[in-house]
Amino acid sequence: MEKEINNSLHHSYPMNKGNGPFSYSQNSSVQRGASEIAQDIIREEITKKLHIQQLSSSSGILQSFHVADFGCSTGPNTFLATQTIVEALEMKFQSTEGTNPPEFQVFFNDVVSNDFNHLFASLPPERRYFAAGVPGSFYSRLFPKSSLHFAHSASSLSWLSRVPEEVTDKSSPAYNGEKIHYIGARKEVSEAYSAQCVRDVGTFLLARAQELAGGGLLALVSPGLTDEISISRTSPGLNFQVFESCLIEMAKKGLISEEKVNSFNMPIYFPSLKELEAAVHENGQYFTTERIEILVNPMEASISKASLEQSSLHMRAVFEGMIIKYFGTDIANEFFNEYSRKVAECPLFFDPDIQQLKVLVLVLKRKMGATLRKA
Amino acid sequence: MEKEINNSLHHSYPMNKGNGPFSYSQNSSVQRGASEIAQDIIREEITKKLHIQQLSSSSGILQSFHVADFGCSTGPNTFLATQTIVEALEMKFQSTEGTNPPEFQVFFNDVVSNDFNHLFASLPPERRYFAAGVPGSFYSRLFPKSSLHFAHSASSLSWLSRVPEEVTDKSSPAYNGEKIHYIGARKEVSEAYSAQCVRDVGTFLLARAQELAGGGLLALVSPGLTDEISISRTSPGLNFQVFESCLIEMAKKGLISEEKVNSFNMPIYFPSLKELEAAVHENGQYFTTERIEILVNPMEASISKASLEQSSLHMRAVFEGMIIKYFGTDIANEFFNEYSRKVAECPLFFDPDIQQLKVLVLVLKRKMGATLRKA
Repeated sequence: MEKEINNSLHHSYPMNKGNGPFSYSQNSSVQRGASEIAQDIIREEITKKLHIQQLSSSSGILQSFHVADFGCSTGPNTFLATQTIVEALEMKFQSTEGTNPPEFQVFFNDVVSNDFNHLFASLPPERRYFAAGVPGSFYSRLFPKSSLHFAHSASSLSWLSRVPEEVTDKSSPAYNGEKIHYIGARKEVSEAYSAQCVRDVGTFLLARAQELAGGGLLALVSPGLTDEISISRTSPGLNFQVFESCLIEMAKKGLISEEKVNSFNMPIYFPSLKELEAAVHENGQYFTTERIEILVNPMEASISKASLEQSSLHMRAVFEGMIIKYFGTDIANEFFNEYSRKVAECPLFFDPDIQQLKVLVLVLKRKMGATLRKA
Repeated sequence: MEKEINNSLHHSYPMNKGNGPFSYSQNSSVQRGASEIAQDIIREEITKKLHIQQLSSSSGILQSFHVADFGCSTGPNTFLATQTIVEALEMKFQSTEGTNPPEFQVFFNDVVSNDFNHLFASLPPERRYFAAGVPGSFYSRLFPKSSLHFAHSASSLSWLSRVPEEVTDKSSPAYNGEKIHYIGARKEVSEAYSAQCVRDVGTFLLARAQELAGGGLLALVSPGLTDEISISRTSPGLNFQVFESCLIEMAKKGLISEEKVNSFNMPIYFPSLKELEAAVHENGQYFTTERIEILVNPMEASISKASLEQSSLHMRAVFEGMIIKYFGTDIANEFFNEYSRKVAECPLFFDPDIQQLKVLVLVLKRKMGATLRKA
């Protein structure tokens, strides 16, 4: 039972709700940084690679143009990203002869437990699109066949569909014991996480391949690694290790059960470009790769040096729901206070050798008329 | 300022959230009754009046079929209604030669403050459609042009877009003083409400005319009146009069401000078939009337005789948000307790002459190619 709960973590973990001091909407500047620097690339790709005639031939007269953001959370990042996309699309239509600008419909997707009420209340009043929310895991079909024309996902594919099975299986060489993620863990654990990531991104791509019309674009933005970076020597890597040490200490003090810590693993993974490309390659019959970029996230750099407090709030906004669900409400405050204290006191964060995650950007195009196997 | 708040009441008044004892989802059997008896008619109309070829010629190959429920609230009624619609559509496609059944996408619409989180968490797991939520007032455009194929609205058009202006204007002959609705009010008040209703239904129809593809159907289900019924001699009419008397008494006791009661009016109206037809007639260039029915709501009859307590809970689920927003949280409990007590003791509810509202059902079809003026 415990294993089941652990493995299905992602199903229940939205970002912190609402607009309060620990909310995601107030503490998502790292994701915003990643999203913002990717925007120029997305704008360029829309201008150069989106062919309206191609899209029309696959989905009929484009009376309405459908954009979806997968893993939108509660804003504001999703509103900035979709605004960029819609503006670039409008310009594309204006500059393409013989086309009338269609009306835009933007679909905001996240897990069922996401705070859609807050998202809807925060929709920009001056938006130039019709808005809709789509609840459900993006590791499954969410839209009718060929009904989307542009799909976007930023900082969301780090959430695996599940904790890899082996990691909580005591008889497996990949069993992860009291550790709670792959960072600083044994090679087998790391490999299990990597394989899960490639499978998950593959599942994501296969679902999107069905939902995108031929000629439609898919822009993926993800914090990730390149060959020369080791996750345990990055600022997020350090954060997760402090996170882990807090849990282990609380278990030693008897505040939470050791058994629970042993069965707990975080379904989080920061892929390398190589891993993303492997998943894309596997779905090469459906997609062409239009653009790959590795960018530096300006927010990440500034946070690690200047504002560890902000970084702690960010971790709380993202992971408090998970901690509460797994270890109970009572310990959440103590856990995050201890976590913030440790982060503030950890000299490693100021080590000049500590690296930052990169921002990986992939823009894919749905091939015309490729037949689909069942997702 | 007070007037402004009053007039924009509908913008902020969703049904009671969640699943608790006073929630809409637990107390919406009256609406369910109306919706259920209308279902046979909707099923028939889909079979007889929906022409797939016609729809395809207006919106291209029907790869996906789009259904919208306007004023869905939090369920479960919307799920029952949309299931009926999707099943009938599936059968229609199966029995139409030369068509492949498309995939269905169902859009659930209600005001921004509706509890979409609860709605999404309650979606039937075995549904055969892709679900989306669309926040916003249905008295405005919510979807791209010609993007819907079937639209449905049940028990929602009773909510006016606003309280008619004259009713809170002290210099107007339609000024409604301490009364809080048109029931039992002067003729001028009643006329102002009626005119607002016809305008609102017209606005609704004009927005839907733009959103529906040519050949698409629009099914409207509304509690309402026929010529021989007077609203003040109906069970809901009595309910609203008790409601009003509670507020007036609380003002006399000094528990709420008399000025507030004077400026408060409910944006609720139960239209007659004649009024609905007037709004349809005004939009006759866009719609043909395919069916009109006047039905008896079995739930309404049973509630008035057997279960006044249930009826009180229903009123609380629907109107508590409005009372709290206007008069404050503190008085809500006392108000609804007093209201329930009065209803339980009111002999009029058992008067055999007390009538029930009817269920009015209109099925309209969007004409092909009618040019649209701006909504």
